[in-house]
Parts: sequence; structure tokens; C-alpha cells
Amino acid sequence: MIPMDALEELRAALPGDVVVTDPAATEKYRHDWSRDPSAGTPEAVVRAEDAAQVQIAVRWAAAHRVPVVPRGAGSGLSGGASAVDGGIVLSLERMAEIEIDTSCQVAVVQPGAFNKDVKAAAAEAGLWYPPDPSSYEICSIGGNVATNAGGLCCVKYGVTTDYVLGLDVVLADGTLVTLGGKRIKDVAGLSLVKLFVGSEGTLGIVTRAILRLVPAQAARSTLVATFPTVHAAAEAVVTMRSTMRPCLCELMDRDSVNAVEDHRPMGLDRDAGALLIVQSDAPGEVRSAELATMQAACEAAGAVECFATDDAAEGEQFVQARRMSFPALEARGSLLLEDVGVPIPLLPDLLDAIGRIATSYDVEIPVVAHAGDGNTHPNIVYDPADADSERRARAAFGEVMAAAIALGGTITGEHGVGKAKAIALPDQLGPDVMALTLTIKRALDPDGILNPGAILDGR
Amino acid sequence: MIPMDALEELRAALPGDVVVTDPAATEKYRHDWSRDPSAGTPEAVVRAEDAAQVQIAVRWAAAHRVPVVPRGAGSGLSGGASAVDGGIVLSLERMAEIEIDTSCQVAVVQPGAFNKDVKAAAAEAGLWYPPDPSSYEICSIGGNVATNAGGLCCVKYGVTTDYVLGLDVVLADGTLVTLGGKRIKDVAGLSLVKLFVGSEGTLGIVTRAILRLVPAQAARSTLVATFPTVHAAAEAVVTMRSTMRPCLCELMDRDSVNAVEDHRPMGLDRDAGALLIVQSDAPGEVRSAELATMQAACEAAGAVECFATDDAAEGEQFVQARRMSFPALEARGSLLLEDVGVPIPLLPDLLDAIGRIATSYDVEIPVVAHAGDGNTHPNIVYDPADADSERRARAAFGEVMAAAIALGGTITGEHGVGKAKAIALPDQLGPDVMALTLTIKRALDPDGILNPGAILDGR
Repeated sequence: MIPMDALEELRAALPGDVVVTDPAATEKYRHDWSRDPSAGTPEAVVRAEDAAQVQIAVRWAAAHRVPVVPRGAGSGLSGGASAVDGGIVLSLERMAEIEIDTSCQVAVVQPGAFNKDVKAAAAEAGLWYPPDPSSYEICSIGGNVATNAGGLCCVKYGVTTDYVLGLDVVLADGTLVTLGGKRIKDVAGLSLVKLFVGSEGTLGIVTRAILRLVPAQAARSTLVATFPTVHAAAEAVVTMRSTMRPCLCELMDRDSVNAVEDHRPMGLDRDAGALLIVQSDAPGEVRSAELATMQAACEAAGAVECFATDDAAEGEQFVQARRMSFPALEARGSLLLEDVGVPIPLLPDLLDAIGRIATSYDVEIPVVAHAGDGNTHPNIVYDPADADSERRARAAFGEVMAAAIALGGTITGEHGVGKAKAIALPDQLGPDVMALTLTIKRALDPDGILNPGAILDGR
Repeated sequence: MIPMDALEELRAALPGDVVVTDPAATEKYRHDWSRDPSAGTPEAVVRAEDAAQVQIAVRWAAAHRVPVVPRGAGSGLSGGASAVDGGIVLSLERMAEIEIDTSCQVAVVQPGAFNKDVKAAAAEAGLWYPPDPSSYEICSIGGNVATNAGGLCCVKYGVTTDYVLGLDVVLADGTLVTLGGKRIKDVAGLSLVKLFVGSEGTLGIVTRAILRLVPAQAARSTLVATFPTVHAAAEAVVTMRSTMRPCLCELMDRDSVNAVEDHRPMGLDRDAGALLIVQSDAPGEVRSAELATMQAACEAAGAVECFATDDAAEGEQFVQARRMSFPALEARGSLLLEDVGVPIPLLPDLLDAIGRIATSYDVEIPVVAHAGDGNTHPNIVYDPADADSERRARAAFGEVMAAAIALGGTITGEHGVGKAKAIALPDQLGPDVMALTLTIKRALDPDGILNPGAILDGR
């Protein structure tokens, strides 16, 4: 519990309606999209309007040793923004300014700006901000930076960290540092920008990001293939990825396809064991060659049907169907969201292992995957009203992560560890890397006030 | 001075000829290519054969509080591998194995392997390792990782950090940690791989790197343009970079062109104020469009002559001439090597400032530049036998860095801070970022044994 006089001090230090303590109003800041049942209740939410207010809140928290959970749009899938009891939530939702610097080809963005709005602003200037999480319409840049978010185009264009040139960060003692800048190349000093990207709010709070933009993407052609099994679809991915880089390479298994068709009929083949959506944005004759390579890989792996289109709108419909899988699955029950990845050649093995786990725990685990990067989202469906269903789902959740680690993979390819997977991180990293992680955390946040329980399990 | 019995202990712990103490043999491990006159004399050189021997040497150094200077090929340009008195040099030159994993599209490389050999091994498998410092034939991957090295193609393909998926690192206490792996996407835990890239041996010693490979580069077309002034050439770069990304964009000023022609005649135009070499590797009609854009930008900026060729060998000759500028300048006297960068639109201003500094200090400062990234190499020529020449050169060296900082730029775009520029780093980063840097350094290397004086000035 934060003493009342401390809360009064916070309220007095910040203007107007920045600090919210009414439980009805703070309730919606408890969870992110992972709906972490162990999320706490914040004693206050600070809806900062600028970096100076973030500093005031963090200095106050440091003085009173109050946990601070930074929060962007709350669309995270690993409980990285789950509130903790006795702490505050520091919401960046009001800091959403976007400035495009065309001559430098950068966007200067506040953390609460939505990914889609950065894309739109860049597009107006004829430029492109590539990172595109499936949730790009509702996720914020601050969260993208915090998790080093990936997406669909990163199979060719890389992930968030590849586009972050500079960050303003409020440290655990309230100091505001400016790291990097509009310079494309800069190796002066340690790679501090890169350290904060992916640190999930445990080392500092990002108040501004300078993002690299690139020329607009060329038109894309799309190949859609159906397969008898996910294993066959994965084999096709392994084959094509050994010689080329598609600009999108997404896999949906039968359960995901049917979930989407139930949610909003898109005309997908409900009988296919798996669907592969692959795109090329290469110019000229290279695009035809890439499409031919993709199709040959699909046919060699036993594709039932291949359909190619140069029509952008038609191709986009399939991508939309893929993006819809998460809301479609959410409509089926409660979900435990996985984000495991393996080196690309082991993708078929990982998918097989997931299938075995589903059978052995008698749970439904629809899978969608950024297959071209070996990154999969097995989503474990359970009935929260049925204790046994939930128990089996949670056991399967651990088993899926263990299967990825056993294949030399990762428990999270793009969502982050958050609080939901912190308990499994030592299994992947081992004691020495965990000790190194803790050394850095303690050096930068000695009192452990920044997003406690994320990445490093506090239990 | 290291006590004799401690040196005997080190020798006894390592086999055969791993430890060298003969001054005639250790002399060549004192300097890197920056020929730092303040470089010390190592009391021993450990030429490790594997990671276990690196661990033995570092554990020994930690026990005796002996400084350890890690060293790859010694081709660094900022004194990052300058030896320190009373310390040892830990040479990785014998650890040069390269393994290509085609199905994962990665290279698993020991730090002493040369960049060119990684490129060659990748090419045999039909793949490409893009990072290409001008010194790629004589620089090692360990050094590339330590400095986050750039090069010529990074204007389109990024720098070393963009290709590092995993690292084995020996920490200051001798612990060996494995970070990352063959997984393309992995956000499990802090971004430790990225923190070690660019840390210049101050946080740990890299004993293995897992490097991302990409499909082989397409054929390139080349545009060469001459300009009356470097300012005009830089204006052309600003214009073309606001709408496109060439795959190479190099600038040479008149002095650099003449130095190369003196060193090895290549038929370059000695009268041009500046030469721009630009390439496109885009496929099909996009390449023609890119070349047209480049040429239009050059003409609009007042190019005297434009010459385009699709002949790869002919284009490569110009790139070779550019690569030769450093050895050609070395033949003219002693050099102080700059590596300053600015946001691209400020490139003309930076070049103007460099010209003013050359005039005002009466020193020759030939400039070559990775112009497309705003990264320049003004190389200050002086006569080491003339004390006044050296004094003026050193004053100009500081002024060039100050000019870059004043333009919102960096003192080093790709060479690293090393020991040569550590004194100027606080001017760029400011006290708060320096404090943050020191916090991380102290957490990971509490006794300060790893490459003391690099990045953080010890004076």
C-alpha cells in the first residue's frame, strides 16, 4: 500500500487529471491482452503528458520505492503491462505525437503513438515504417520498442530494433537521457539504444523514439497454397527460405483457418491441413522468379493447391484473414498465447511437437506462424469455467516452451517475456545468462521499481 | 609490472607457444593501424586457440587484476587494440574457424576469421555476408563485432549488428556465456547480443559469432560523377537519399583522388573537385529507374560529368580505387583518422566545416566518405618529424569532432571510440549518458581489467 500522503504528494506534483486513483478508472489499466489472471491492482495511474511528467512520476516512485509499470496501448500478449499490487501504472497513451523528417528519412515519435499512425504519416511523405505486428492498428510504438516487436514483413525487412536510431529514456532515478539521434551510423559509446529496445520497461521508460524510415514498399504479388498437413507446409517454407527471402511468409493451420471462417467468412479452404500465404515485393523479373521458386517449393512439399495473384487487394484479403486469427480465436474461449520460435529448418519438428502436446494434454492448440522466421504462435484454447481444462492448458503452455527450447529455440520471438513467461526464461537462458541479466538490471534499477516481475521472475 | 611468478602461473596454465613474452615478438601486438603513439607495451601476449584458453587467461587476469586488451587482426583505426603498460594482449588470431549452415542461412565464426573469408565461405554456398569495411580483406570478425563495423554496402544493407544473431562471450570473471543462437527472431530476455556488439572489448571477449547470411547480391550497375566541389557532390547525395537507397554511395574529394592516382594510377579525374561513386543492385526496370534518379540528382547538383556502366568489372575498379584511398594516404605521411558522421541533410555543412578547419589549421585533410550514410573519413595528414605539423594536426582532429557534434552528429560512425577518441566522447554523449555507460561498465567489469582506456577515458 502506498501511504495516502505519498499519493497526495504525487497528485500535487502533477497537473489536473494526470493522476487517476478512482478504482473504476484504474481497472482498465490492470491487464494487457494476455488477461494475466495474476495481474495486480494499481493504486494510481499516471497518464503523463510529456517526458517531464514521466520524470516527476519516476522520481516520486524512486523516493517512495513504489513499483512503476509502464504501459503503452495495453495490447501486449505476455503480461508485460500487467499491473502490480502496491504500484502505479505509468500510461504513455497521451504522448502520441508523430513528426516526419523527410530529409533525414526518420520519424520522431512519442511512445503512445500507434504503429498504424506512424505508418500512415510516413506514407504521406512517400516513406515506409516497416515493422508491422499483427496488432499494428492498436499497438503503440512504445510497446513495440519495449518488446522489440516483429510482425509479418520482418522476414525480409527486420524487426523493431533494426529501425530504432535514437531513444529518449527516463531512467530509474528519473534522469532523462537522449541516446542516438538522426544519424544513420553511430558507434560512439556502448550500444545503449539497442539495450533499451526489448527491455520491456525494466531498465527505463521510453519517452521518444527516432525511427528510421525507408522508401515505400513496391507492389506485392501473393501466392496462397494449401497443404494436407502443417508439417508439409513447414517443409515448403524451409525449402524456399534456404534460397530466398519472401517479404511475407505466414502459415495458418486448419483450426486457425476454421476459427477465422467461423468469425468472419473469408472463403478460405476449411478442409486444408494448412494454408501458406507468401508474398514477393521484388521488382520486375525477379518477382516472377521468386514466385516460381515459392510455388516449386510448395509443390515439392505436396501442396494440394497453389493460387497466385498480382492483384494487391486480393492478396491483402488473405493477409487480413491471417491478421484476424487472433480476434477470431479469442471468440472461442480463453487463450494462452505462445510465441515460440526455432531455427528455420526445425520448424516442421516444432509443429509436430506442438501437435503431440495438443493430443497428449487434450487441448486445442490452433497455430498461426510467421513461418519464414521460424516464429510460431500456438494459441492454447481453454474454458476458464472448467478447472481441469485450464490446468491442462497451463501444462501444455509450459510443454510448448520446453519443446522450443529443446530444439534450440526461444520461448518468445516477438511478444516479449513479460510476466507470463518470466518463470520459463531461466530454462532457455541458463544460470550464467540469467546472472548477467540480473547484474544489468540491478545496476540500472537498484531498487527494482521498474516493471517488477517482467523478464525477471520475482516469485 | 606483472610479478614474474604470476607470469609463470599464466604460462603453466596454457599449452606450448600460446603465451609470448619475448619483447621482439610482442612488439607487433602494441599497435593497431591508428599507430597510437601512446600505446603501451604488453608484458605478455596470449594467442588463444579456443574459448577455454580465453577463459583461463581472463580468470588469471581477474585474479591478478591485470589489464586485458583483446585483439583481432589489429586493423582497427581508433586505437581500440592499443596495448596498455602492465597488461596483456589477448590475441584471437588463431581462432579463425568458419562454418556455414546453409539451411539456417548463418555462419558460425570464430573471432579471428577474416571478414573476406566469411564472405568467401558464404559465397561458396550461394549466400552473402554483407558487412564490408574497406579493410575487409585484412580485418577480423571479432574486430567487426567489437566496433559494430560498417562499410560500403551498409547504406542499403545495414551494419554488423544487423547480422549478429548470437555471440559467445567470455566475461570479466572468466565466465563463458552463450547469447542468442541460430534463431532469426528471439526477444527472450534483455538484448545482450546487441549490447556486446560495439562494446570494443570493454565488457567481454567474443569467442564465437553466429552471423546471419542472406541470398547473394544481384549484379550492380555503377554511376560515377564528378563535381566542381565536395559541397556539390554532397548535395547530390542528399537529394538522391531523400527518395531512394543506393547499395553503395561513396564520395572522394580531390586530394583523395590525387593520393590514389599517385599511389596507383587508376585513370581518375585529378581535376575534379569531388568524385561520387553510386551503385544500384535493384532488379529489372527498378535499376534503370534508380540510376536515372541518381543521375538526375547529380546533374541537378551541378555534376561536371556522369558516367554509367552495367559492366561489373568496370564498376568494381572505381570501388577498388575508393578502397585504396587509405593505403594511398598512408603513403603521404602520418595520419589522424577521423570517422565523423551527421544526419544526411547536414553532410554538405559538415564537409564545408572540414574544409574551413583544414584552412584554419593549415593542414591537409583529404576526405573520403560513405556519403549515403552521412559518414565521412577526413584523414588529417601530418609530418611526424615536424612538431608544429603534428600539433596543428591534433588540434584539427579535435575540431573536426567538435564540428560533427555541433551539427548533431557523431565522432565515430563505424571505427569505434577506441583509445584515440575516448577523450572526446563526453562532448558527444554528455554527463548523464557517460554516467550510464560507466554504470554498465562497472557492473560487468568491476575491476576495470577489460580494455581499459577504450570508450571510457582512464586519464
